[in-house]
Amino acid sequence: MRLARPLEKLIRELEKLPGIGPKSAQRLALHILRQPAVEVRELARALVEAREKTFPCSRCGNLTEIDPCWICTDPQRDESIICVVEQASDVMAVERANYQGKYYVLNQNPRLMDSGSLEELNLQGLLNFIKGGRVQEIILATNPTIDGELTARYIARVVKSFGVRITRLAHGLPVGGDLEYTDELTLRRALEGRREI
Amino acid sequence: MRLARPLEKLIRELEKLPGIGPKSAQRLALHILRQPAVEVRELARALVEAREKTFPCSRCGNLTEIDPCWICTDPQRDESIICVVEQASDVMAVERANYQGKYYVLNQNPRLMDSGSLEELNLQGLLNFIKGGRVQEIILATNPTIDGELTARYIARVVKSFGVRITRLAHGLPVGGDLEYTDELTLRRALEGRREI
Repeated sequence: MRLARPLEKLIRELEKLPGIGPKSAQRLALHILRQPAVEVRELARALVEAREKTFPCSRCGNLTEIDPCWICTDPQRDESIICVVEQASDVMAVERANYQGKYYVLNQNPRLMDSGSLEELNLQGLLNFIKGGRVQEIILATNPTIDGELTARYIARVVKSFGVRITRLAHGLPVGGDLEYTDELTLRRALEGRREI
Repeated sequence: MRLARPLEKLIRELEKLPGIGPKSAQRLALHILRQPAVEVRELARALVEAREKTFPCSRCGNLTEIDPCWICTDPQRDESIICVVEQASDVMAVERANYQGKYYVLNQNPRLMDSGSLEELNLQGLLNFIKGGRVQEIILATNPTIDGELTARYIARVVKSFGVRITRLAHGLPVGGDLEYTDELTLRRALEGRREI
């Protein structure tokens, strides 16, 4: 099938995005051709500006357009707690849960099982936070995967000597989930973590 | 939740696209931030260029970057058949079925039941094709909906006096479909259109 070249090019570009197959790319491209030119330029500008004006905060690693980021400099936030996460998207998830402390974003793909290179994790910023003297607790909120677990344990080992409290997010049943369809490992953890009511 | 402003802006722009909800927009935006800047600029440019450099062909209404479009000027294509479709996306679908004739794209949303304004359909280009004298058949490939049917019948009435053959796409079972789950109207049409084997 031959298409107008700029349309074909757009479809090919859209197909590169995750979760966008050939059909969706075509549908999106045709939708875009129907929009006012000014709105399409707006989208194009948003893409370029997001890419060029956001960067990891030099203190915590979270995505920001000012350095240090607003979370690092916000006096309202509890600087005695630091939540360590793998990615900026994890910050968004924890923020939605109404967490009020600070963050440390590893920004490294923990494919530790492959490389065994835990030592490559950049923990300098985290150690700087701790040495600042106000940190009382570090929540290791890496993913509940094997890699996430290994990362958490490694970090726990590194920071243990500083005498701060080190915690890990609880495992258990997802709220609104179904006992019957919960995998046995999660259920075992939920049993181990049971609480008095 | 507060985000880096350029990131938030990008998420809002992406959410405007059809089929992209808040979660997908966030996922796409974070993906984009991880891409090389040159690739993001490429996508942005593709968006703007597709919007600004494609337009409906002055002869057939299909999307093109040259006028008349390549289908209108391709000497290999059978100019005795014209396939009338509602939208440029329909051209793409018919092209995939390996059709070798020409097209006429209505480029009008036939919401005819509401407005009753069939007379507003722009058929001048179609009549120009017919008056050119080489057209022998017009395939009315409007959608198999009530609006599409009404549009097809209206066009058939308009072009009947020119003595060309007027056809409509066959109705019937979709290939790979399931008899059990075929709606009764489709099944009735499939029975009516049955053929000797």
